[in-house]
Amino acid sequence: VTTLLVSHRYKEVFGNYIIETARSHGITLELAALPPGPEGRIDEATAARVEIGLFSSDVYPAFAKQYFSATRATTGLKWLHLFNTGVDHPVYASILQRGVRMTTSAGTTAEPIAQTAVAGLVMLARGFPRWLASQRERRWEPVPVNQWARDLRGQVVILYGVGNIGRQIARLARAFGFKIIGVDPVAVSCEHVDELHKPEELDRLLPGCDWLVLACPLTKETRGSINARIIGQLPRGAGIINVARGEIIDEPALVNALQSGHLGKAYLDVFTTEPLPADSPLWSMRDVIITPHGAANAGGNEARVNALFLDNLSRWTRGEPLINEITSL
Amino acid sequence: VTTLLVSHRYKEVFGNYIIETARSHGITLELAALPPGPEGRIDEATAARVEIGLFSSDVYPAFAKQYFSATRATTGLKWLHLFNTGVDHPVYASILQRGVRMTTSAGTTAEPIAQTAVAGLVMLARGFPRWLASQRERRWEPVPVNQWARDLRGQVVILYGVGNIGRQIARLARAFGFKIIGVDPVAVSCEHVDELHKPEELDRLLPGCDWLVLACPLTKETRGSINARIIGQLPRGAGIINVARGEIIDEPALVNALQSGHLGKAYLDVFTTEPLPADSPLWSMRDVIITPHGAANAGGNEARVNALFLDNLSRWTRGEPLINEITSL
Repeated sequence: VTTLLVSHRYKEVFGNYIIETARSHGITLELAALPPGPEGRIDEATAARVEIGLFSSDVYPAFAKQYFSATRATTGLKWLHLFNTGVDHPVYASILQRGVRMTTSAGTTAEPIAQTAVAGLVMLARGFPRWLASQRERRWEPVPVNQWARDLRGQVVILYGVGNIGRQIARLARAFGFKIIGVDPVAVSCEHVDELHKPEELDRLLPGCDWLVLACPLTKETRGSINARIIGQLPRGAGIINVARGEIIDEPALVNALQSGHLGKAYLDVFTTEPLPADSPLWSMRDVIITPHGAANAGGNEARVNALFLDNLSRWTRGEPLINEITSL
Repeated sequence: VTTLLVSHRYKEVFGNYIIETARSHGITLELAALPPGPEGRIDEATAARVEIGLFSSDVYPAFAKQYFSATRATTGLKWLHLFNTGVDHPVYASILQRGVRMTTSAGTTAEPIAQTAVAGLVMLARGFPRWLASQRERRWEPVPVNQWARDLRGQVVILYGVGNIGRQIARLARAFGFKIIGVDPVAVSCEHVDELHKPEELDRLLPGCDWLVLACPLTKETRGSINARIIGQLPRGAGIINVARGEIIDEPALVNALQSGHLGKAYLDVFTTEPLPADSPLWSMRDVIITPHGAANAGGNEARVNALFLDNLSRWTRGEPLINEITSL
């Protein structure tokens, strides 16, 4: 019997499914469910049996703290599977340091994130914020012909990061006619970009682009990398899309550039401080679209995470390499 | 010398370009520009010389009446080229009845219209109206996991009309994973749809779709065709996108279905009465996006219309068939 730590809701919704599917792979699972509510704890005897942890989307963000303190109590924890992709939070480094193996669900939300990012890009590029502002005031205000949105076809997107998410963004944005210039420190090819460059080339590339789209992980290298100097090299009126991590952008520099009009448009799903404070000027800027770190939200995510977890569980049992294993942070 | 009737603005912006390009094709053009302002008229001697008319986007809607009364004064008018695609307005039938040949710019705005339609579709399908409502109140409100938007991949779009615009909508929506069922009275194939059916099949198809997207011309057959009975066959919560003509939908039936919750979402660019009256309930419905008949607006339209007009002008001069000629209405 292998004991798996899950959330209360996860056990209720998916418990039987996970147990039965694991059984069909020859694995006998026992679920240790974290009781509901912020004070919920698992008892010591159960904690001692837990071998595997599954950090599911319903735990984030409200119960993440409680979940991770439960994992600290699981002295025999060997492997933790995460519903998410980004492992920039310090808790993950500390889990690795304990000798616990860790796998992410990278790829399972790439498509919804890319769909949301490209929705934001096209909303801005086609001029929806102006139309929506008129709608709120019940005013029919056709845009004068000399202010019509520029053709999307031929506009240049610099796509910073061509991993699972970036590749899907490239594919979708290219269907709309955008030219995609990928920038990535490691990728050597990407099916859907028109050009692929190293980050060292950014300085040369930025003045010729219309949109900067961030789809990279938060790392030592990317933290704060989109700073006032980089933003200053974008042409006046350019747009920024961030579905990666807020900390990649120097947020005060972003706010300044939007306020001065140097940047013309932004779609932001992630912020340096989340929840984005109510007094942030970003909330109420013309041509700035804000979503609450929800670009990935999609009804099929849990099924995709479950399928990936069960695949990894079967690999774990057979001693094979795990998919999406993180070995250093 | 061939005399071409254009708007004042058109002559100022494109006059030299059109004259020079025509000259390179061996055609000598004289431009008769309608003076600015609603009272502007061309003199009788000029009107008598006009052989060709070019109805440009800047004339619509404010100066359309003035333009068409000028064409009535042009006794020798032989050919009228239109910037637009839809020729449902009665003025066009009366022009044909005068024996004037008429060509449209069908195809020149297909891509921007499709981009806008799919932007509206994806905004609704990913749940942007809810996020935007939170943003307006500066509130960070993540959507609970059990209310996340359904996966786009696999949702079914019934696309009514697979002409220039419909084909582009199919191509873009399919990139997002939607399954596309085309419905068209005449098309026998379409590259980007998963299935293609005749309108007689609608009754059978509607209960299985998530979205009804209208991209057909307004004709005797389509006028009022999306009525209470058709809407009633859509599953509860389905969405409607209309970038075609308002009169295709029975608008009171649409309003009823949105108010009752039978329809869950709509993106509407066109209406039975335009401007949409300020007291229309459509303006302020949750999950209804309104744009002011601007889906086609794009900076490159005029260049595409000019290129098409010049191609047709060269054909006209050589006595060859014209592109997009309308021979009956």
